[in-house]
Order: sequence, then C-alpha cells, then structure tokens
Amino acid sequence: DLKKMLEELHPADIAEIIESLAEKQRVSVFGLLSSEKAAAVLYELNSEIVAPLMESLDKSIAAEIMDEMSTDDAADIIGDLKDEDKAKLLNLMEYADAEDVQELMDYPEDTAGGIMTTEYVAIREDITVERAIQVVREFAQEAETVYYVYVINERNQLVGVISLRELILAKSSATIADVMRRKVVSVNVQTDQEEVANMVAKYDFLAVPVVDNNNQLLGIVTVDDVIDVIREEATEDMYLLVGTTEIDDEEDLYHRIRKSVRYRLPWLLITLMSGVISGQIIKSFSGALNAMVALAFFIPLLTGMGGNLGTQSSTIIVRGIATGQIDSRKILHNIIREGLVGLSIGLICGFIVAIFAVLWQGKPILGLIVGLAMWGNMVTAATIGTLVPLLLKKLNVDPAVASAPFISTTLDNTGLIIYGSLTMLFFKFLI
Amino acid sequence: DLKKMLEELHPADIAEIIESLAEKQRVSVFGLLSSEKAAAVLYELNSEIVAPLMESLDKSIAAEIMDEMSTDDAADIIGDLKDEDKAKLLNLMEYADAEDVQELMDYPEDTAGGIMTTEYVAIREDITVERAIQVVREFAQEAETVYYVYVINERNQLVGVISLRELILAKSSATIADVMRRKVVSVNVQTDQEEVANMVAKYDFLAVPVVDNNNQLLGIVTVDDVIDVIREEATEDMYLLVGTTEIDDEEDLYHRIRKSVRYRLPWLLITLMSGVISGQIIKSFSGALNAMVALAFFIPLLTGMGGNLGTQSSTIIVRGIATGQIDSRKILHNIIREGLVGLSIGLICGFIVAIFAVLWQGKPILGLIVGLAMWGNMVTAATIGTLVPLLLKKLNVDPAVASAPFISTTLDNTGLIIYGSLTMLFFKFLI
Ligand SMILES: [Mg+2]
Ligand SMILES: [Mg+2]
Ligand SMILES: [Mg+2]
Ligand SMILES: [Mg+2]
Ligand SMILES: [Mg+2]
Ligand SMILES: [Mg+2]
Ligand SMILES: [Mg+2]
Ligand SMILES: [Mg+2]
Ligand SMILES: [Mg+2]
Ligand SMILES: [Mg+2]
Ligand SMILES: [Mg+2]
Ligand SMILES: [Mg+2]
Ligand SMILES: [Mg+2]
Repeated sequence: DLKKMLEELHPADIAEIIESLAEKQRVSVFGLLSSEKAAAVLYELNSEIVAPLMESLDKSIAAEIMDEMSTDDAADIIGDLKDEDKAKLLNLMEYADAEDVQELMDYPEDTAGGIMTTEYVAIREDITVERAIQVVREFAQEAETVYYVYVINERNQLVGVISLRELILAKSSATIADVMRRKVVSVNVQTDQEEVANMVAKYDFLAVPVVDNNNQLLGIVTVDDVIDVIREEATEDMYLLVGTTEIDDEEDLYHRIRKSVRYRLPWLLITLMSGVISGQIIKSFSGALNAMVALAFFIPLLTGMGGNLGTQSSTIIVRGIATGQIDSRKILHNIIREGLVGLSIGLICGFIVAIFAVLWQGKPILGLIVGLAMWGNMVTAATIGTLVPLLLKKLNVDPAVASAPFISTTLDNTGLIIYGSLTMLFFKFLI
Repeated sequence: DLKKMLEELHPADIAEIIESLAEKQRVSVFGLLSSEKAAAVLYELNSEIVAPLMESLDKSIAAEIMDEMSTDDAADIIGDLKDEDKAKLLNLMEYADAEDVQELMDYPEDTAGGIMTTEYVAIREDITVERAIQVVREFAQEAETVYYVYVINERNQLVGVISLRELILAKSSATIADVMRRKVVSVNVQTDQEEVANMVAKYDFLAVPVVDNNNQLLGIVTVDDVIDVIREEATEDMYLLVGTTEIDDEEDLYHRIRKSVRYRLPWLLITLMSGVISGQIIKSFSGALNAMVALAFFIPLLTGMGGNLGTQSSTIIVRGIATGQIDSRKILHNIIREGLVGLSIGLICGFIVAIFAVLWQGKPILGLIVGLAMWGNMVTAATIGTLVPLLLKKLNVDPAVASAPFISTTLDNTGLIIYGSLTMLFFKFLI
C-alpha cells in the first residue's frame, strides 16, 4: 500500500511528491510517514510549505518529528514558524535537543553558526582507539557524520581530530593522543557561510568544526550543507547581478508575479530615472541633432556596447571575488587589467564603427566622432564595471549589487556625455 | 628548514605558495616535496602551471608522483600534457594505474566518466561484515573514500552498497548480503557532470557510483569533485550570460588581455552589428525625427529598460534550468508567467514615462506614444528573455548562451521598431 511504498522511497523523492500535491493532500500523505522518515522528508521540503504542514500536525507528533531531525535543520524549520508555535514545539521536544535548537536559532542564518549542527562525535584524548570506536558506534545513529571524530579537552576546547578511516587503521590499544592530528582547521561561529564553503571546497573536507572565540567546540558544518550554500550563493549573486531575486516555486501564480514585480520594479525604476537623465543629456545637444538627425542613428549602438562591456567586467569581478580568484584589495591592478581590455576592444570596435559611419553617411568627421565616442565609452565601461563592485566590497556592501541595470544605465549616460561632447567639439566641421 | 615546514602544511596551502612564485622557484620548491605530498599539491595547483612543472621534472620522479595520485586527478593532469610526455609518463607508471588513467582520459571531461575515480572499495556479498571491515582497512590508504563500500557480483555489476557507518554497527558475523542496501542510486558513465552534481546535492551523498550500460561498476564520483563541478558550472553560466569566459590567474598580463579580448570580442561584434541595425531602424523614421527631435530623447530610456527586463528574465530561466527549479519543457507556462510580470512592470513603467513625457514636452500625444512603446517593449522583453533560453535548451544548446549582449541588443531593435511604428501611427497628431 501507499504507506509501505512511501517508506521505501528516498526522502528527497517523497519531498518532491508532496510538493506536487495540493495542501490538503500534503497533510494526509505526510501523516502516513514514520516520525524518522517524516523528519528526513521535512528537511528536503521547500521551506515555504514546511510551516503550514507543521502547523497542521498534532503538536506531540510534530515534536517527535523534530526530535528525529538534525538540530541544524530543526532550528531552520522551527525558526520559520509563528512565535506561539515555536514555543509550543520547543516545550514538547526532549530537553537537550530543544536547548540546542534554541541556541542554533539565535545565530544569523548566513554564518557558520546558522548552518552548523550540534550532533557530532567528540572524545577525550586519553581514551584508547578501541574505546573511541566504541563511542563512534554509540553515536552512529544520531550524529550527522561519524567520519570525523573531534577531540576536546576538559574545557570543551578543540584540540585534535581523527577520521574514522585513520581510527580503524590505528592500533586498538593506542591512545587518541598518540594518533590524532593536532592541527585542526576550524571556523569561528560568526564566519560568513560563503567563507566556510570556500574553506571546505579548498581542503576537500566532509565537515568542518565550528568554535567560539575561546576555541570551544560548538558544532560542525557538514559538506551537504556546504553544497547548498554554494548553490544558494551563486544563485543569489546571479540574481542580484540582474536586479531580481529568487521566487519560490511553491506560491501560486498571482503571488509569484506580485513578488517578482515588487522585487524587480525598484531596480527598473532606477533604470527609468537614469533613462530620463539620458533624455536630458540628448536634449542638451539637440541643436546638433536638429542640424543633423543622423547623429541619433548611433545612440543605441554606443549605449548598447558600453552596457554590455561594462556588465562583462562587473560580472567577472563579482564572481572572482566570490570564488576567491580575484583579490578585491588590488583595486588598481584589476582596473588596469580590465581597462586595458576595454582599451583594446574599444580600439577595434571604434575603428569598425568609424569606417561604417563614413561609408553609411559619407561624412569622415562623423566617423571620427562616432569612432572616438565608441572607444572612450568602452574604456569607461570597463573601468566603471570593474571599479563599482570593488568599491562596494571595500564598503562591505555585497559587490553583486553592482547590477546590470545600474551599471548599464550609468554607462548609457557616460556614453551619451562623451558622444555629445565630441559632437560639440567637432560641430563646426560636421555641418 | 623549508623542506620540513612544507611537509607540515596542507597541500592546498602549499599550492597557493607555489602559485605565487616565479616559474624557476616553483620547480625548486616543488622538488623539495615527498612524492606523496607532491601528488596532493599537484592536484590543488591551477591547471595552467601543472604541465610546465611536470615537464621540468625527471620522468621517473614524475611517474612516482602520478602513482601516488588519485586516478581521476592523474588523468586530468596527464591529459593536459603534450602527447610525447603523456606516453612517457604512462610508460613509467605502475601498469594497473596507467591502464586506469588511460581509460579515464578517454571520457569526455564534463561527464561522470570524466570526473570519476577508479579507486573505490568493492566487495562481494557473500563475505562477512568482519571480513569486509578487513578489506576496508586494506584499501584505506589508496581509496578515495572508504565511507561507502560497494557490493558487486561476479560480473562486476553493482548490486548493493553499505556505508562504513552501517558496517561498524552491523554484527561481525553477518554476511554483507544480509546488511547491505540493495537499492543503489548510480549514474551512467555518460551522464553530464551537472546532472551528477544535482543528484549528489539532492541525496546528500559523499560519493555516487558510476556504471556502464550493463550496470558494471566503473568508478565513483566523490563529493569534493562535485563541489568543484557546481562552482565551475555556476561560473561558466554567469560568464556565458554576459558573453565572456574564465581567464586563468596564472597567465601574464599580455596573454590574459589577449585571451580576454579574443573571447569577448565576438559577442560584442554581434552587439555592434545589431547596433548598426538599430541605426537603420531609426533612419527609417528620420522624417518624424526631423520634424520633432524630442523623439530621440526617449531612445536610451526605451532600449535600456527593455534590455534590463529581458536580461532578468533570461537569467531567471537559465539559472532555474541549471538548478532544476524550472522545468524547461513547460515553455508556455514559463512564458505566461514571465510575460505577465513584463505586462505588470510595463504598465507601471509605461504610465510613469508617459506622465513624464507629457510634463516635460507638453505633448499628450507624445506621452501616449512613449508610454505605449514602453509597455509593448517590456512585454516583448520578458517574452523574448524567457523564450530564447528555453528554445536553446530544447535544441540541446546550452541555454546560458542566451547572453545579455544578444538579448539586450535584440530588444533594442524590437523596442525601436515598436517606438517607430507607434510614431508613424500617431504622426499626424504629433506635429
Ligand atoms: Mg540554520
Ligand atoms: Mg576541492
Ligand atoms: Mg544533512
Ligand atoms: Mg545539516
Ligand atoms: Mg554572496
Ligand atoms: Mg549571502
Ligand atoms: Mg577528469
Ligand atoms: Mg542536499
Ligand atoms: Mg579529491
Ligand atoms: Mg577526485
Ligand atoms: Mg552548464
Ligand atoms: Mg558545462
Ligand atoms: Mg542597454
């Protein structure tokens, strides 16, 4: 029957099935699961539907499910509930778990504390390898990972680590002090989650221990959660770069569209205001435009190219900072590099466009103006596209807000100013 | 001394030090490492500097280092060498390893085969748990991971899996057949690496087995390599979306700039050609422009807004396809959703811009033209920005080539056509 079939499926697959159902059916299918399975499924479910599901459950069943969960996931889920439900659930949970969960909820979501779990295996250094393996066996059901065993002293400070691989290779009678690694890479509880992820990626860890300022062990961050962080952060950056946000699959069409419009509109209104400025700039050389309407033909060409090159530069810088490939302190170094790219591309494109303008309109001076404007615009584009995210980073603002809408409309205006100025400068030769 | 200090550092850190050195120093520092350490460091090094480093080494030392490496990493490194060096190195390596490496090199880089390693632990189902743990101990040095033990039959087909955690909890005298999981999630050797990564992320695996069409076990993909894939693919998509590529940190400034220009120029030349078409479109309504130069003031505003909205839509679709959040087969569904967003945003922005045009130029009919053009342009932008990546995906082209340069210049032109047509339509009321 359905109940048995569900127990055999992987939690991630059950979660997908539940997500595809209507709300009422969700509750009844979820009710068929054992509390162990329910916990695993809950963790996989899209966060939008977890809260209503939990609230529809009998509180004692909900608490039982929470007890089965990893503390980090329980903290995430309970944190999303209404305040009254939070308290109810925590009261019903086993005391030790509830306390851990309560503490975990207090850490900011995007720090090591916000993604760590308290279910790790820790031992003292004076026990034997044989005894340590026994401890691993005892914790194997509950711990998030048993493949790293952390060694702590009497003050709960992290003093060593040993992998299960090393443990099963070691002599049973040896003490942990003899065989453990004393150099442990750890992260502070306040470390940004992106930095934690970069560290795990660099060292190929399966988990990394999290400590407080006194090196006391507070928890571990496991590699599966690191993967989620890496994907989340990449998505966040991509969306920020174009001025939008992630929209949950779970909401109905109306709410999705409303949320989407609400988030994207401000960025587009910035573009709009900047576009009004563009109009003002063009107006300021409308005398020349009146005398020679062909000047207008090149406006989209100039602004379009600047925006694209500038967006390339800012994307390269934003991604480079995120992956650690670009050193954001070397502002000048990066600007010179991208600036030279802009200079080269500008020379080539400026030349092409100048030739084209001459052939098309039969005015060499127009070719000169358009070509020079293109070249100047490309250099400006590369420079601004590089500078803005680096400055934002320096000001501790997320560099990914150096978004395409902002960068490209700014460049529309610098491009128009360059084009207008050159037109004024050569105006007497033009007519 | 330096040699001792290096042995104590983590390979990833040594790699960073070596990368910061000049080529000559690299060779001498690298020469100080034991072959075991050298193998680990080599794996962490930026691929650009590995080949010259390997080529500078005595071939027998190089082969010794290769033998110490994981076969997947050795395949990647040897694959990057010149053909003559490839053969030399493979000849010097241990026969079994060389054969594995040779085979791995033949798989396409971005498939399961291209990222798997052949160093896994496999057992038969008729042995006892005690014996299995003994096997794990024997392979613990060499295997990439011992935390999953794969169970194969006499034809080398994958029939089960058991984690080391489960193994140490099981009764020593039980047979593997009694305790193993028979439902094994595996991937085909030809599966795209992004799909492999999505699967590992979904199921929270530490490794996933790779099989051929007959379910014969060929290798495993480990989570550390999955993390690299996820980061790589995200970077690739971000760069494709703006029409650029990853530039290695290792090259000197001249080569970096040359490579950067070479890659980015074609995309920008497409923009340029498209910009020329824009000029032609504007030319086609130059009569109206001559009569009323204020029409030109709104060109950057209209084109800028369309490009930005369209880029938002295409980025949302491209990322959604990559993470599996968007079902690329539901083309109509996605177009309706984004189209409605475009419609709403277009209404708001069109209204604002119309009001502004009236106030600024004192011509209600100009406000109507500009407002309607804005609205039409925004709907087109959202629709095209959504449609293009979905169509590319359907044609089996990477949807991320629906890049900002391409999308936004296309939208410049559709926007100008809409604007020009509306101008012609209402021209008699305008003057
Ligand atoms: Mg959390
Ligand atoms: Mg790594
Ligand atoms: Mg987990
Ligand atoms: Mg977790
Ligand atoms: Mg970020
Ligand atoms: Mg973040
Ligand atoms: Mg490979
Ligand atoms: Mg996961
Ligand atoms: Mg590895
Ligand atoms: Mg590997
Ligand atoms: Mg891809
Ligand atoms: Mg790819
Ligand atoms: Mg533009």
